[in-house]
Parts: sequence; C-alpha cells; structure tokens
Amino acid sequence: MVQLYGDERIDYLLAEENMRIIQSPSVFAFSLDAVLLADFTYVPKTRGKILDLCTGNGVIPLFLSRRSSVPITGVELQERLYDMALRNVELNGLEDQLSMIHGDLKDMPAYYGNRKFDLVTCNPPYFPTPKSDEQNLNEHFAIARHEIYCSLEDVIESCSRLAKSGGKVSMVHRPDRLVEIIELFKKHKLEPKRMRLVYPKEGKEANILLIEGTRDGKPGLTILPPLYALTNENEYTPELKEILYGK
Amino acid sequence: MVQLYGDERIDYLLAEENMRIIQSPSVFAFSLDAVLLADFTYVPKTRGKILDLCTGNGVIPLFLSRRSSVPITGVELQERLYDMALRNVELNGLEDQLSMIHGDLKDMPAYYGNRKFDLVTCNPPYFPTPKSDEQNLNEHFAIARHEIYCSLEDVIESCSRLAKSGGKVSMVHRPDRLVEIIELFKKHKLEPKRMRLVYPKEGKEANILLIEGTRDGKPGLTILPPLYALTNENEYTPELKEILYGK
Repeated sequence: MVQLYGDERIDYLLAEENMRIIQSPSVFAFSLDAVLLADFTYVPKTRGKILDLCTGNGVIPLFLSRRSSVPITGVELQERLYDMALRNVELNGLEDQLSMIHGDLKDMPAYYGNRKFDLVTCNPPYFPTPKSDEQNLNEHFAIARHEIYCSLEDVIESCSRLAKSGGKVSMVHRPDRLVEIIELFKKHKLEPKRMRLVYPKEGKEANILLIEGTRDGKPGLTILPPLYALTNENEYTPELKEILYGK
Repeated sequence: MVQLYGDERIDYLLAEENMRIIQSPSVFAFSLDAVLLADFTYVPKTRGKILDLCTGNGVIPLFLSRRSSVPITGVELQERLYDMALRNVELNGLEDQLSMIHGDLKDMPAYYGNRKFDLVTCNPPYFPTPKSDEQNLNEHFAIARHEIYCSLEDVIESCSRLAKSGGKVSMVHRPDRLVEIIELFKKHKLEPKRMRLVYPKEGKEANILLIEGTRDGKPGLTILPPLYALTNENEYTPELKEILYGK
C-alpha cells in the first residue's frame, strides 16, 4: 500500500479503469490539458524512448503507458510532486516501464546528451512570471503555472535538444502564445507539423492549443479538426467523453 | 451598359442583392476564399483608406464597399482582370468609392509611400511556382494561383509597408503555410492578432486560413470559433449560408 500525505487522495485515471492516481487539491491535480495532450500526441509504440518534462504527479507518463510499451521517463522540479509521481508509478505497478527524475528540465540535455528521445512531451507553465505580489500564494501552483523556473524558450530549447532528428515534440499551451511558440519551434529546429485547437463550446474562441513538431522536419502543417469541450447544454461533448472515459 | 467579352457573364454578388459582378469561367471567377476574407476582416467604417492587393475582378472591394464608406483601391497585375474590375466598379455605380490600379503589388510601396492604409487585404496566389510543365496551362489561372510574379514574402512585405502603424493586414491562405506566414508577418513587423480556420466539414482538417495582423501591434493572438463549410449532408452550414446569402 502506498503512503498518502496531507489531503492526497487516490482517483481513477478516467478511461483507464485499472489505473489510479494520487492527487492533492492543495498541491497538484491533473488537468484536462494533460489528458488532451496524451490523446493528441504521436506515440512510439514498441521502439524508442519517451521523455515527459514538467511531469507533475506523472499523469502523462501514466496515460502514455497505455498506448506504448517503450520506456517513459518523467522529469519534475518540485520534490513534493516528484515524490507523488514516484508513488503513482508504484501504485500502478509500472516500475518496469516508467521512471521519474527529480530535476530541472534545463539540465536534462546535459544529463542525457542531445538527440536521445523519439518523443518529448511537455505541459509547461502557461503564464509569464507576474509581479511577486500577484503570484499565486500557493508555491506549488505558482511554480506549475508561471514561468518562474523556466521560460517558454527554456522549455522548447530543452525539448528540441533532447529529441532525436526526426523525433517528435508535443506540447499543450494557450492559443494566445501560438505566435511565440511557432517562432521558438523554428528557432530551435522543430518544424510544426500537427496542431489541434480546443474550444470551450460552439461560438467561443479557442482556449487550448495542442502542437507537435518534428526535429529537423520538412515544412507543412496539418491543422486537425477542432475539438469542442462542452455542448450548448454545458455537458461534455461525445468526443471529449470518449477521450476522457473511452467508448 | 457595360461591355462583356468572350465567356464573361454577370452574376449576382451573393448576399448583396443590389450588386452584380462580371466573371468568366475561363479567366477568373471569385472563390469562397474571397467571400470569407471579406467577412472575416476588420474594416474601417467611415475614416481611413483600404487597399486590396491581388484584387482579380475586384470582388473584395465590391464586398467591402457594403461595410465601409471609405475609399477602397484594388491592385491587379493582369490587364485582362484589371479591365474586368474596372467594369465591375462601373456596373455597380461605385466610381466615387472604388478605384483600380493596373500594376504590380511590389511597386505599390514606392508608388504610394509607406504607412498609408488603415487596412490592406490580400487573397494571394497560394502555391509555390511549379515546374513549368506542371503549371496550369491557362496563363490567367496560373498567375492567380501560383507564386509566379510574387512570392509569399513579396506579398507580406508589401502589405506591411503599405499599412499604417496600428493598421491591419488581412489575408486568406492555406493552413499548411501558417508557419511561414507567421514567420513572415513577424519579420515584417506585422503582429498576428486574429485567426480563423475553416474546415470543409466535421472531422476534416482545416483547408482555409484567415489571418489578420496589426502593423507594430502587441503580441497576443485570438483564435476565433471554427467555421464549417458543409454539413454531413454536404449542404452549406447555416453559418456559411448567412455569410453567403445574408440572414
């Protein structure tokens, strides 16, 4: 039996009826964004290696383990979350496939060397660093949400260096940062190849951006069908239900 | 009565029941893309000036004249189309508001000087120049569709130079060129501010890109709700019908 601390609880991992995940309302609970990224991304099925930066409680490696048999490593800066991620691996008996590193994503290229992974995923902090008095008072949330320990360029540069030539980098972010993301992808030799926009409901502006690039890839972007989260009656759409709970 | 040549015919301009347009199946007929750009773009209503590059038979100036009272000029390289555009102005009695220039868009910044327009619109050629034996055998179509006389960068550079600081540039293009468009916008000081993607129908990839930038604008992109062209029964969607034919 794994240890739980404070207000941690064990939840089912949505569609994955045999998987469970330790979360904490006051420290970290995975978001829709992580689920959507795990659904969107290309995954090497049987050969290669996957790295997930900003892994939090390890939710993306847990999801990806259902679509792939290759080794998956998560990297988390916050010790409290890294520890939760470790226990999530144990809770699901995935020690043979998943591993976790307590470290800074900026140090990973030096640690691993360049060009090592077939896929690098990341659900990074979305917001530029605010003035300190506006920052989220909860340090765990602030670090996960704001670019305090890593800028968007730090994230993209690390992803790019870690990916093999021809390997993929998949990221979830906010649509209002798309221009910056495309510029940084290009600057770091990641060619944007697939993009999907998520809209809260019909008639609303996009609020989630999913984007995948190929290291040293050829130009040519495909924009996938849009995804609506909610119906006009404020229920999950059938497509989102399928992503969340399976058919 | 205006003169018609060859297979030219006079069509109604869709929702604009009092407007008509000369077209020719063998030379130039306006496309859905032009209608969508005219619907999407910001328009200065009563003050300022509008320029439409690659105007063809003048369809975009005709559409925009219904949303704005400011002077609108179209620029067309092909004399045959320029002549059609002139007759379209006359046919609709819009000589006081619309004017046409027979010229190369690349010469317009020198002709007008920089920073002159509140809005520059463009529905440019979409396709890189193919090998000459693959080119469309109809010269009029080839010039309108392929980057024979102007590259994408020529177009964006001219748009940017012609727009006032704070002025808008609106363009319709193919989604697979989005990365290049964003890079060229940024290179030429156009900040992408609004984007809309058009999908042929549910579950399909986007096939039309509408994008608007502000000259010297601040970063921050809004991605508008998606537009589907057809229903699953292959009829125009209600939203497209409204754009085409009005309420």
